[in-house]
Amino acid sequence: MRARTSRLGCGSLKPGARNAITDVPGVRVGHCSVVQGATIRTGVTAVVPHGGDLFRDKPVAAAAVLNGFGKSIGLIQLAELGVLETPILLTNTLSVGVCGTALIRRAIAANPAIGREAPTVNPLVAECNDGFLNDIQALAVTEAHAEAALDAAAESFASGAVGAGTGMSCFGFKGGIGTASRRVSLDGSSYHLGALVLANFGRAGDLRLPDGRRVKPPTEASPTASGAAAPPGALSAAEIDPPSMPDAGDSPETGSCIVVLATDVPLDHRQLGRVARRAGVGLAWCGAFWGHGSGDIAVAFTTANRMPAAPEQALVPQTVLAEGRIDRLFQAAAEATQEAVLDALAAAETMEGRDGHRRIGLRHVLTGS
Amino acid sequence: MRARTSRLGCGSLKPGARNAITDVPGVRVGHCSVVQGATIRTGVTAVVPHGGDLFRDKPVAAAAVLNGFGKSIGLIQLAELGVLETPILLTNTLSVGVCGTALIRRAIAANPAIGREAPTVNPLVAECNDGFLNDIQALAVTEAHAEAALDAAAESFASGAVGAGTGMSCFGFKGGIGTASRRVSLDGSSYHLGALVLANFGRAGDLRLPDGRRVKPPTEASPTASGAAAPPGALSAAEIDPPSMPDAGDSPETGSCIVVLATDVPLDHRQLGRVARRAGVGLAWCGAFWGHGSGDIAVAFTTANRMPAAPEQALVPQTVLAEGRIDRLFQAAAEATQEAVLDALAAAETMEGRDGHRRIGLRHVLTGS
Amino acid sequence: MRARTSRLGCGSLKPGARNAITDVPGVRVGHCSVVQGATIRTGVTAVVPHGGDLFRDKPVAAAAVLNGFGKSIGLIQLAELGVLETPILLTNTLSVGVCGTALIRRAIAANPAIGREAPTVNPLVAECNDGFLNDIQALAVTEAHAEAALDAAAESFASGAVGAGTGMSCFGFKGGIGTASRRVSLDGSSYHLGALVLANFGRAGDLRLPDGRRVKPPTEASPTASGAAAPPGALSAAEIDPPSMPDAGDSPETGSCIVVLATDVPLDHRQLGRVARRAGVGLAWCGAFWGHGSGDIAVAFTTANRMPAAPEQALVPQTVLAEGRIDRLFQAAAEATQEAVLDALAAAETMEGRDGHRRIGLRHVLTGS
Amino acid sequence: MRARTSRLGCGSLKPGARNAITDVPGVRVGHCSVVQGATIRTGVTAVVPHGGDLFRDKPVAAAAVLNGFGKSIGLIQLAELGVLETPILLTNTLSVGVCGTALIRRAIAANPAIGREAPTVNPLVAECNDGFLNDIQALAVTEAHAEAALDAAAESFASGAVGAGTGMSCFGFKGGIGTASRRVSLDGSSYHLGALVLANFGRAGDLRLPDGRRVKPPTEASPTASGAAAPPGALSAAEIDPPSMPDAGDSPETGSCIVVLATDVPLDHRQLGRVARRAGVGLAWCGAFWGHGSGDIAVAFTTANRMPAAPEQALVPQTVLAEGRIDRLFQAAAEATQEAVLDALAAAETMEGRDGHRRIGLRHVLTGS
Repeated sequence: MRARTSRLGCGSLKPGARNAITDVPGVRVGHCSVVQGATIRTGVTAVVPHGGDLFRDKPVAAAAVLNGFGKSIGLIQLAELGVLETPILLTNTLSVGVCGTALIRRAIAANPAIGREAPTVNPLVAECNDGFLNDIQALAVTEAHAEAALDAAAESFASGAVGAGTGMSCFGFKGGIGTASRRVSLDGSSYHLGALVLANFGRAGDLRLPDGRRVKPPTEASPTASGAAAPPGALSAAEIDPPSMPDAGDSPETGSCIVVLATDVPLDHRQLGRVARRAGVGLAWCGAFWGHGSGDIAVAFTTANRMPAAPEQALVPQTVLAEGRIDRLFQAAAEATQEAVLDALAAAETMEGRDGHRRIGLRHVLTGS
Repeated sequence: MRARTSRLGCGSLKPGARNAITDVPGVRVGHCSVVQGATIRTGVTAVVPHGGDLFRDKPVAAAAVLNGFGKSIGLIQLAELGVLETPILLTNTLSVGVCGTALIRRAIAANPAIGREAPTVNPLVAECNDGFLNDIQALAVTEAHAEAALDAAAESFASGAVGAGTGMSCFGFKGGIGTASRRVSLDGSSYHLGALVLANFGRAGDLRLPDGRRVKPPTEASPTASGAAAPPGALSAAEIDPPSMPDAGDSPETGSCIVVLATDVPLDHRQLGRVARRAGVGLAWCGAFWGHGSGDIAVAFTTANRMPAAPEQALVPQTVLAEGRIDRLFQAAAEATQEAVLDALAAAETMEGRDGHRRIGLRHVLTGS
Repeated sequence: MRARTSRLGCGSLKPGARNAITDVPGVRVGHCSVVQGATIRTGVTAVVPHGGDLFRDKPVAAAAVLNGFGKSIGLIQLAELGVLETPILLTNTLSVGVCGTALIRRAIAANPAIGREAPTVNPLVAECNDGFLNDIQALAVTEAHAEAALDAAAESFASGAVGAGTGMSCFGFKGGIGTASRRVSLDGSSYHLGALVLANFGRAGDLRLPDGRRVKPPTEASPTASGAAAPPGALSAAEIDPPSMPDAGDSPETGSCIVVLATDVPLDHRQLGRVARRAGVGLAWCGAFWGHGSGDIAVAFTTANRMPAAPEQALVPQTVLAEGRIDRLFQAAAEATQEAVLDALAAAETMEGRDGHRRIGLRHVLTGS
Repeated sequence: MRARTSRLGCGSLKPGARNAITDVPGVRVGHCSVVQGATIRTGVTAVVPHGGDLFRDKPVAAAAVLNGFGKSIGLIQLAELGVLETPILLTNTLSVGVCGTALIRRAIAANPAIGREAPTVNPLVAECNDGFLNDIQALAVTEAHAEAALDAAAESFASGAVGAGTGMSCFGFKGGIGTASRRVSLDGSSYHLGALVLANFGRAGDLRLPDGRRVKPPTEASPTASGAAAPPGALSAAEIDPPSMPDAGDSPETGSCIVVLATDVPLDHRQLGRVARRAGVGLAWCGAFWGHGSGDIAVAFTTANRMPAAPEQALVPQTVLAEGRIDRLFQAAAEATQEAVLDALAAAETMEGRDGHRRIGLRHVLTGS
């Protein structure tokens, strides 16, 4: 189930053919889910910007830190140099280091001059804390998992509790990976902007559907290791309008949301930063206020401007968007981010993890209503 | 009419006694509306953080630039030194200079050492473009108007088309000044966070009410100098759900929104910056995506931490909030900003201005529905 | 006298023909000095990036805030949109508002759609505090002075105590306006990077000459209104090596330095920001540590990338520099900034101002040694 | 040999008893040098801010990114929350991931609630590229090396080619770890500011000594695996004044410099950010211009303001410095950074590494002159 097939489509711009980040030509996504025994619920998701060598042909990119309670690698150099040099890996908070190392090894294998005749490579890894369902302290993700996610990259990929999204939670429901896209027309040519989110944010009760309804998970008995919960089909939605929000002190936000935006509209680093910031609008439209504990970070790249590692000429031609036309991209970024979050929620099945912790899939609630 | 009395209250936190920024003890607000003939619809609004001399007793403050298409004075030094030194003045885009000069003169009058034995003073002025209703090129605002707004500062003040809000527009309706507040309880003590907005942003059709409805102004014949429009009472709401947004290229966003947040919770500069950023959530909850042309800027200050201009000791005691408790302030900032925008819309009457341009008050639409 | 003719040339890169910011083709500079009676020692300096209409043909630009104790107008929008829309005006701290208003009026006169069919215009004004020599509280600068500086813009212009530099101080000496340039060769083509500084920073005793010597002003009797100081020719340099720096508490830094960098190398906003930051290296090489009270701000623009106000196409071609070639521009920015400061010091004559305050020209000290 | 005993002391402020970052009470430093065969020349250096548990008692801190060509972990959250949660580890560029993982494991061992009841922990790791002497692609650093550096932390520690500095280069000479400190007196009480640098930056020929002389390494025959170079004692300095800088295109800067500043003066996050920025002045005073390829990053922390992980009260008292007194800390940061770089150069012995690459110790050059 996708968001749109669950009648959770957002906004007014038209989605692309897949309604996915891979509607941007050349972009591919791969997952490696890591599920072991009763306690390991984690994984890695890779976003590959184009089919060439990223170290030699660097896509122009930028990031927006909406709430910097997060442990990424690579954002400092991205802000300085304005390019990606590796695929983007998403994983759990404590596995950022191992994923960064995997990206480095892979880049060196393809470019033996790295760190010698050539500069070092800047891996980009971002994360959310899946510690509610996953035994995050086990550090279960290995370099081999990162490699597997990279190797699996394809135009077609799953939403929901897969890859880095395996153990994530969102608004008290099961979260995960979601995606959406929007078509953008400029001077008669068609372009796309796509979003992929690792959705692990939001307090129970704050979720707002596109029609304005608020939805929260049904109250359950305290989760236990026996997992004697009612079957999903029996659940009924507890919709509240207006919302009676729980005390923030009682339900501290400990999640995060990573948003990756891709487009084939030619933009420069500054413009991509402006677009990335609008991911925050999409999260707000879902009902969030970028909680203290939520490391909300957006990365945006274009496939239409590249910087070669070793250009033959000192001057490199680029193309930018006339600034007065950028509102359509802002709207697309906000809409696609909102729908990508709902896509993660719509696709994810109920899951149990460590210590009998359990997250209900929104699909079961909406179906049961 | 206020937002809440128009059934446009937002969120779940309780407002203060006035539901205004002046619920924060010591904060005062003053307006000077400048309405001249058929074409001048502008003014100045002053937010005064406390009753003492601001240059000698500087409130700790911070700003968040959500979309920097704006022409403020004073934000650079605010980011470096983390304090206010003057009241905050709001006005139209082309009158920032004259308002800055007025603040300087007033500060010098109270502190003759400024720029000599003492450092110079950093005035803080922010703006929106009221050029749709106002002949902004006339540069009608004078230093005397700024002085009048400062002199008028009081705990009780009007919302709607007053002061700097006189000529503003918002989501195709008449915009202006709005305010709201939220109570925040910490360890059994009661505090407030208040918002004041100069609301001049949003495309017609994007406005979203707290219950999820979208509202846009009724279609009128093109405005003419004769102004032969139907009386407000005859209008009916055109509610759309889902929205059919106009093409951004057709209706370029040329507005802005300035948000001033005040609190008596002791925060430091970094924490105030985090709170200020959540004003962007409030704007998004109103339906905006921080359009390209909208200079959306938030300034947040606390009355509970001050830096003296000439402290007797090298070390100055301050108080900060335990970071884990800050979510409640984020929520309060988002809710109060959202409601303050709706307050401006609820309070503003229909107005005609230059070249027969006309903005309908939302109150007339909601009343007629 | 220029820095280089005073044997104060810096670094190893070759200067342009004028050794001035106007070596960048199209750049012009104009001064209006405002000297009235015994107490007014101030003025305005204009840097005009190219000969066309700047609102319609916007040069790509960026700024670096090295120490934000300053009161500029226009930097927020510059950071967001990455372009200049007006000439850059430099003046004293309290005259920023009036200079901003002058730029607005001039832009409206040339573009009557501003603030109506077109967006508003973003004036750029930066400042230093000339309050030691000038009665800054008199607010002597008028819009007419700003107009005069703009009208005077030419390829040839004076260094020293002129324009905005009229009343400035630097390392205890007479400061003012200085300039320098460097040639940059790329793929066999010749380009320039030029710097213009408004130099009003540095504690007495901290000045370091290119050969490593430190120079401080000779001790004088306390300045008096009678001005009975010895003639400049009689002064001798007090060179100290190693320096015995005065206690910072005793001589608080209250100055500032504005650096304008121009180049005809095509760079984008991000790259120009990187270049602008290297102005801080130039100031450090002069002996400064960017003192608390010194509003040290650099603005860099290129004449080789422009954004039209109303482009016919959605996509606009631009050219950027291969990032691996940018070190030469960093070195040029650092060297030109350092030499421009020394140029201001070398050119400025001894001046007396308000309350008998007096600043000795470095040229008199160096001549007498 | 230390910088000061080599007559390379800098500035006018007095150093502390050790002239080291550990003059700040509670601060400790540990090294683990990793030297294996002919090609591994790398390691880890740990800076431990205080003797307690850093996750439970977080020192207030901030960073300044002077040139973001670097691959750190932890700076994003540091900017958002303003505290350290782990010791600071320095290592080579490609070992950041493994060092981050080591910090995470150690924090979890001490605080089993991390990532479960408590938030995750934010490790702080910064790096330079030692690929000239070290086979950086071998990824020789392990978690055990990071542990060893942490375990070795003490008040007394070595400068030069040790720990993370083992394989570093600086201005064409052998670089490494250096340190220095300055005393700061406030209201009659004595405080310290200390610097520790991982110095791996600067083009050959750009090094400037405190007395103004420029020094570059003697020209050698191309390094070979046989290492048939003349003994260090036979070398003579090639001092050049004025400098004839090499073409930047010929000697691209591929180094970096990490600066850690510690103080017991109570500062807040904003003030520490201002202090950290002045590390850039110290690097400039050494002759650098923060080259394109040099990831120059400074982190500053205070031991005098802490944020508890789980405070009992919502409000936490802090102490800040009266802003007008901060110049002394700026000067101390600039001087200590400059001297710490020279300390690394003065202490480091000549070293050979991979592929017969060789860096001469400055001490041999200065001794031989």
